[in-house]
Amino acid sequence: MPDVTSNGTGWQVYLSGEIHTDWRERISSGAVAAGLDVTFHAPVTDHAASDDAGVTILGGEERAFWKDHVGAGVNALRTRTLIERADIVVVRFGDQYKQWNAAFDAGYAAALGKSIITLHPEQHDHALKEVDRAALAVAREPEQVVELLRYVLQGTLTN
Amino acid sequence: MPDVTSNGTGWQVYLSGEIHTDWRERISSGAVAAGLDVTFHAPVTDHAASDDAGVTILGGEERAFWKDHVGAGVNALRTRTLIERADIVVVRFGDQYKQWNAAFDAGYAAALGKSIITLHPEQHDHALKEVDRAALAVAREPEQVVELLRYVLQGTLTN
Amino acid sequence: MPDVTSNGTGWQVYLSGEIHTDWRERISSGAVAAGLDVTFHAPVTDHAASDDAGVTILGGEERAFWKDHVGAGVNALRTRTLIERADIVVVRFGDQYKQWNAAFDAGYAAALGKSIITLHPEQHDHALKEVDRAALAVAREPEQVVELLRYVLQGTLTN
Amino acid sequence: MPDVTSNGTGWQVYLSGEIHTDWRERISSGAVAAGLDVTFHAPVTDHAASDDAGVTILGGEERAFWKDHVGAGVNALRTRTLIERADIVVVRFGDQYKQWNAAFDAGYAAALGKSIITLHPEQHDHALKEVDRAALAVAREPEQVVELLRYVLQGTLTN
Amino acid sequence: MPDVTSNGTGWQVYLSGEIHTDWRERISSGAVAAGLDVTFHAPVTDHAASDDAGVTILGGEERAFWKDHVGAGVNALRTRTLIERADIVVVRFGDQYKQWNAAFDAGYAAALGKSIITLHPEQHDHALKEVDRAALAVAREPEQVVELLRYVLQGTLTN
Amino acid sequence: MPDVTSNGTGWQVYLSGEIHTDWRERISSGAVAAGLDVTFHAPVTDHAASDDAGVTILGGEERAFWKDHVGAGVNALRTRTLIERADIVVVRFGDQYKQWNAAFDAGYAAALGKSIITLHPEQHDHALKEVDRAALAVAREPEQVVELLRYVLQGTLTN
Amino acid sequence: MPDVTSNGTGWQVYLSGEIHTDWRERISSGAVAAGLDVTFHAPVTDHAASDDAGVTILGGEERAFWKDHVGAGVNALRTRTLIERADIVVVRFGDQYKQWNAAFDAGYAAALGKSIITLHPEQHDHALKEVDRAALAVAREPEQVVELLRYVLQGTLTN
Amino acid sequence: MPDVTSNGTGWQVYLSGEIHTDWRERISSGAVAAGLDVTFHAPVTDHAASDDAGVTILGGEERAFWKDHVGAGVNALRTRTLIERADIVVVRFGDQYKQWNAAFDAGYAAALGKSIITLHPEQHDHALKEVDRAALAVAREPEQVVELLRYVLQGTLTN
Repeated sequence: MPDVTSNGTGWQVYLSGEIHTDWRERISSGAVAAGLDVTFHAPVTDHAASDDAGVTILGGEERAFWKDHVGAGVNALRTRTLIERADIVVVRFGDQYKQWNAAFDAGYAAALGKSIITLHPEQHDHALKEVDRAALAVAREPEQVVELLRYVLQGTLTN
Repeated sequence: MPDVTSNGTGWQVYLSGEIHTDWRERISSGAVAAGLDVTFHAPVTDHAASDDAGVTILGGEERAFWKDHVGAGVNALRTRTLIERADIVVVRFGDQYKQWNAAFDAGYAAALGKSIITLHPEQHDHALKEVDRAALAVAREPEQVVELLRYVLQGTLTN
Repeated sequence: MPDVTSNGTGWQVYLSGEIHTDWRERISSGAVAAGLDVTFHAPVTDHAASDDAGVTILGGEERAFWKDHVGAGVNALRTRTLIERADIVVVRFGDQYKQWNAAFDAGYAAALGKSIITLHPEQHDHALKEVDRAALAVAREPEQVVELLRYVLQGTLTN
Repeated sequence: MPDVTSNGTGWQVYLSGEIHTDWRERISSGAVAAGLDVTFHAPVTDHAASDDAGVTILGGEERAFWKDHVGAGVNALRTRTLIERADIVVVRFGDQYKQWNAAFDAGYAAALGKSIITLHPEQHDHALKEVDRAALAVAREPEQVVELLRYVLQGTLTN
Repeated sequence: MPDVTSNGTGWQVYLSGEIHTDWRERISSGAVAAGLDVTFHAPVTDHAASDDAGVTILGGEERAFWKDHVGAGVNALRTRTLIERADIVVVRFGDQYKQWNAAFDAGYAAALGKSIITLHPEQHDHALKEVDRAALAVAREPEQVVELLRYVLQGTLTN
Repeated sequence: MPDVTSNGTGWQVYLSGEIHTDWRERISSGAVAAGLDVTFHAPVTDHAASDDAGVTILGGEERAFWKDHVGAGVNALRTRTLIERADIVVVRFGDQYKQWNAAFDAGYAAALGKSIITLHPEQHDHALKEVDRAALAVAREPEQVVELLRYVLQGTLTN
Repeated sequence: MPDVTSNGTGWQVYLSGEIHTDWRERISSGAVAAGLDVTFHAPVTDHAASDDAGVTILGGEERAFWKDHVGAGVNALRTRTLIERADIVVVRFGDQYKQWNAAFDAGYAAALGKSIITLHPEQHDHALKEVDRAALAVAREPEQVVELLRYVLQGTLTN
Repeated sequence: MPDVTSNGTGWQVYLSGEIHTDWRERISSGAVAAGLDVTFHAPVTDHAASDDAGVTILGGEERAFWKDHVGAGVNALRTRTLIERADIVVVRFGDQYKQWNAAFDAGYAAALGKSIITLHPEQHDHALKEVDRAALAVAREPEQVVELLRYVLQGTLTN
């Protein structure tokens, strides 16, 4: 007999934001351990490659502004498509840096009607209140994101 | 020679609403018996898990309102995506409870242009008239939903 | 000098739901007292007229089901357009009745991306958690809705 | 004879972001001086009112997280509608603070297909490269935004 | 005190279909008599002008097919915009002719989510069942359309 | 080396309209002979089943109007989804009957931005001019539709 | 009695393309002479201002590519909004230059579902066949565009 | 452990524009050499077949205008679907010809929100500034497009 609450399949999850800690790996390894049928996507997380991609491929720029502009265009070729394919967008804010691209991704995902999970420490709660308000869940640790995905796909709680 | 009225394939059906009777199982087992290529989706139908998912994963809340709010967000991670994937949304109203989430799902599905089948006893006809008006079919028994799906996919009537 | 935080103008607010108390009048008179440039819309709140509109205009039906069906179609001519025109949809749930049309309107408005305010007593909090989760504000009294509109349009708090 | 390049009329411009300097006033007074038919909109820029609006109107919250959550919902009632009405969204990033809501607004506006002008000092260029890439113009001073609007509406350059 | 169930204003109604009887005049004069704030739109109802518009303005065609093609393009300049502006589309099927353009308009309006009223004699019920199913009301006489509009705008029944 | 003009794959074609001749079979057998990777979809073409589906599954109706209404709803469960999945919609008008559902499908498909091919004898040219104007090709014989599909997928002409 | 085929009001027409002849003036003066209620919009047609707007307002660029890029962004602030507001987009191709921006506007307008009129001499017919195919009318002279607008708004032919 | 920055899969790339050089083959062979999971699509690049497809299949036309019109319709059956399926649209402008269809495709893709890469020599920079402004990358050589795709899918730079 078919189980109408059976494990979900084919979920696409985009992991946006901070690139200096191992949060993406903690989520993906947790999902593997839980046997979830999720495909994770992310921006290019090699900081140097991400910054240099534009000028390396398309030719150098004297002004830093245009180097960044060309690079941001090339990276957007990847990120826009992956966000649009996603069922769920996880947006991580770390301790450091401005991370405006993460907040931009959150706004972009919100206007597309994507389900959003934010992931950040409490210290950012006040500054992120508009972003969190647009999210369906606010997590503190990557393992909570794994649990959320496990519940969403499998429909059961572990404890 | 290809049969242009051959069995439909890959239909996605979301089963929204009442969680206290076996109507989902009756539909899915009927669909299996009929050999239909339909994938059924549903919200988490374990009432306790559904109520507790938010605070269990994301941390306890003192106020019941926020416990519900966190839980509803977590469940929406699942239901919104599945409704958006659906070709047909079946919305079941049982004898008891307010079941406002079922009516909410029906309105949500209607605005997305989804095909809707409602499933409820006659006693609710007057109260559900706006919901039924937005549906393409109003069924009384799960077996009628199976027959509808069989007709939609196979194009034949059993008698 | 133009005041970029000046009073908002031309806001359209749809008042959905319960028709047995004076909540719409309390909101509209409060908005007048506050000098707000808001136009309020509502379904037909004359219960008998709403029930009879279909058969009175288009011809009688023997079965109650079809009387309701015809009536719901006629009323939808009004409500769909007004919800689609609205900037904000206020959905009121009273003490009695199933009020599934209110929840349906909320779901419809949510899928259209409308801003939603729900208005209901605490006793319905658990049953309305999915609807409240899709709202930007949950109010208990009509006067709070007036205050919300005043803040949204004028940008100031009274106390 | 009608002038097909005559002054534009009825443009709606939303001014998002930093609330601690007089940039909005500089833009609006410049637009008045230039005789532009532009209506400016903005979030509530009274910081205290913005933070307190939720709990003042809807009732206090013990946890700061929920106070922020309620407040962000109330403010979103205003900002979402105004961004959706806008032809052009100007997003200002100042020297201080995280300003994630500004970047969120930019992403939201981008996904809606709005025309975006960013306004920020060069020091933020690298951190804002994704946001700037989604903009049609990057300005440094409010007076440049006035010139942009004057050119867009009147089609002439002053020098 | 504002009356939240006050007369509706600014409704746009498109009158599609049959051009050989006075049904449009009966609706518009009835609406005037009822004091409704409705603007009616219609295709060009001068049959000869409608057929000749294309070749008269853009140059003659030898083949009848291309004369029709050019003419249909010119008429679509008018009808598409007016249907897209409409809140309600009334589609009239008369006794004669194929009237495929009326059914096409109905399908076009349905996919745009417009509210549809059909107007036709009973003899066409079976052939129009798919069109009627997409309508919110099926009327037999123009005066019923007036009554529908009066109810939709004023919220009261005359008898 | 990949061939960027290689055979197209996975095209979905909906065959709408007349059900009394073998045009669908001629198209599908032609497509098989040409080795095209096309999946054809169609409404239920068993006239009796199509008419009776509603009342057979959901219960009898005394009035013919409601029998048709229920039946049209059930058939729409199939047709709407299949039209929305289609890349190309072929709409066939035969010699007889009103065939308003075919014209309705064409309008529906046009508003969704689907590519349309019409298929009809010259005698209907004038009556179908609005429908043909919304089409990308007007064919006279099913074999021309096969040739169109072959060209669209394979990019070559046979003579 | 209201005239349901009365003169249309409030039509917005965007005049895209060639800037070296007086075609826009011929259309607008013709529309005035005909008493049409049309508002015409256009890009900035002062070639030097259009080229220099970006660097004049936002600061000089050494590379011509970036000067053009900045200028195109500033001009897009105007053109995108005006195209989106338009009911009809007229695209003019003159004798000279590449005029790729005109073809780009036509593609942009087509994907938005705007009604398109092209205006060009016969010599460009073959090169413009894809653009013309997306148009509802192909005119040779500005006066024909005036006649088209007159017919669309007034519903009568002059000869 | 799953690699969240693993190679992208299933990317669809449409190659629009010039048909007289081997740029499509250089891109596709480069993508094969790089092991990219990309499917390339293109218009029919056999110039004669493309010009003749309409009249060959649907019947001859005396006027060249209608021959082109019919042909453009048939080709649009292919190109519209493939552009709508694309994640990335590459638009190539060569040395010769008007190439208005390439610019039209770019505008069409831009309005659909597709990611665009333009590919053209510097000599066209000024004439293509509006098209380039809507692109995320401007390449000079096909091999740069391969590098862009490799970076987008694999997230690494070769040098």
